Amino acid sequence: MSRSVILLSGGMDSATVLALAIAAGEECYALSFDYGQRHIAELTAAKTIAAQMGVLEHRIIHIDMRQLGGSALTDDSIAVPDAGSEGIPVTYVPARNTVFLSLGLAWAEVLEADAIYAGVNAVDYSGYPDCRPEYIAAFQAMANLATKRSSEGKLLEIRTPLIDLSKNDIVQLGDRLGVDFSLTVSCYSASANGAACGHCDACELRREGFVSAGINDPTRYQTNN
Amino acid sequence: MSRSVILLSGGMDSATVLALAIAAGEECYALSFDYGQRHIAELTAAKTIAAQMGVLEHRIIHIDMRQLGGSALTDDSIAVPDAGSEGIPVTYVPARNTVFLSLGLAWAEVLEADAIYAGVNAVDYSGYPDCRPEYIAAFQAMANLATKRSSEGKLLEIRTPLIDLSKNDIVQLGDRLGVDFSLTVSCYSASANGAACGHCDACELRREGFVSAGINDPTRYQTNN
Repeated sequence: MSRSVILLSGGMDSATVLALAIAAGEECYALSFDYGQRHIAELTAAKTIAAQMGVLEHRIIHIDMRQLGGSALTDDSIAVPDAGSEGIPVTYVPARNTVFLSLGLAWAEVLEADAIYAGVNAVDYSGYPDCRPEYIAAFQAMANLATKRSSEGKLLEIRTPLIDLSKNDIVQLGDRLGVDFSLTVSCYSASANGAACGHCDACELRREGFVSAGINDPTRYQTNN
Repeated sequence: MSRSVILLSGGMDSATVLALAIAAGEECYALSFDYGQRHIAELTAAKTIAAQMGVLEHRIIHIDMRQLGGSALTDDSIAVPDAGSEGIPVTYVPARNTVFLSLGLAWAEVLEADAIYAGVNAVDYSGYPDCRPEYIAAFQAMANLATKRSSEGKLLEIRTPLIDLSKNDIVQLGDRLGVDFSLTVSCYSASANGAACGHCDACELRREGFVSAGINDPTRYQTNN
């Protein structure tokens, strides 16, 4: 049996990745990050999803990325923009995936795990550099040299099964695997109870995914929108 | 003028690296980590060194790596061994340099810095995989793809000026640059006031460095040793 660390944000992509890993028969250890994100409701979602899907263990690591700022998600003075802006948006968090994968690497080494699963996606992604296949390949090459386990020849695989999928594909895949999307939170400005703003990039991508997949969208929206 | 993030542990290597960066005319931003390390006195040392050497800013990021454990430095149930053990010792912290460099990368991007300086050393190192030149080169290749700034062609350089030096070389270099080694803490089992155990790998390497360099060793030792 293979053992894996699953990076679980509480959004629909990572929930689908967790369902894939479970379906593949992996022993799943879920890892989430309390990094000062504006949409802290996603962590409540991650806890519910981890419990409902039956992971062996779920840990939440606190890292104060607000001290570094530089993103609308970690600095309240930068507003979350409505969907449709050009280029890499201000919701990009500097080096976030590198930090998350690094802590995943640390836990994977302690657990003697064989893989890390991450829900990064290069198709419908919002222009984030650390969601591209070439970035993941470079992280893999670095990870192959980074740890005591790797120096003993036990390599860890970084798996990003959604990287080439559209949001439509992801909704269909998650639906087939029985993911309860009503538990997931995608919105960058989600309220404390997980209700979505309906306006941001993450909301738009999510809504379009359900519409194009022809699957009922269970997203709860904030009542003032 | 070039701007740099300096990973500052509070030990003699990172203090020497900071002195090198200052001597090179860099605008220096020091970054330390409160990661649950047993030898928390090194953080007090880092604060004193940063203030004494006049960095523009010093930040300490909290990351609870005790939640992950797997090292004598982050799990009190694993004892720090005396110097001289074979292989990669239990003081190795899984993926530590990857986590630290990743957070350095995040801050460097926010600061629009040109380089990260790290005091990793492959010669007198205690067998840690993430201190080898090939690991640093792989991290550099990954960092070149990881950030928004890198995707705009503004690459960040990972500088490890001590990587090929012996502890003797480092003591001599720091001494020439005016590093006050009495402020630095190397010991893995340092007491709260920074006094060293005298027995661990870090203590032995440090002591041998001063002896072979023929420079007075200002290390304070615990009185029961």
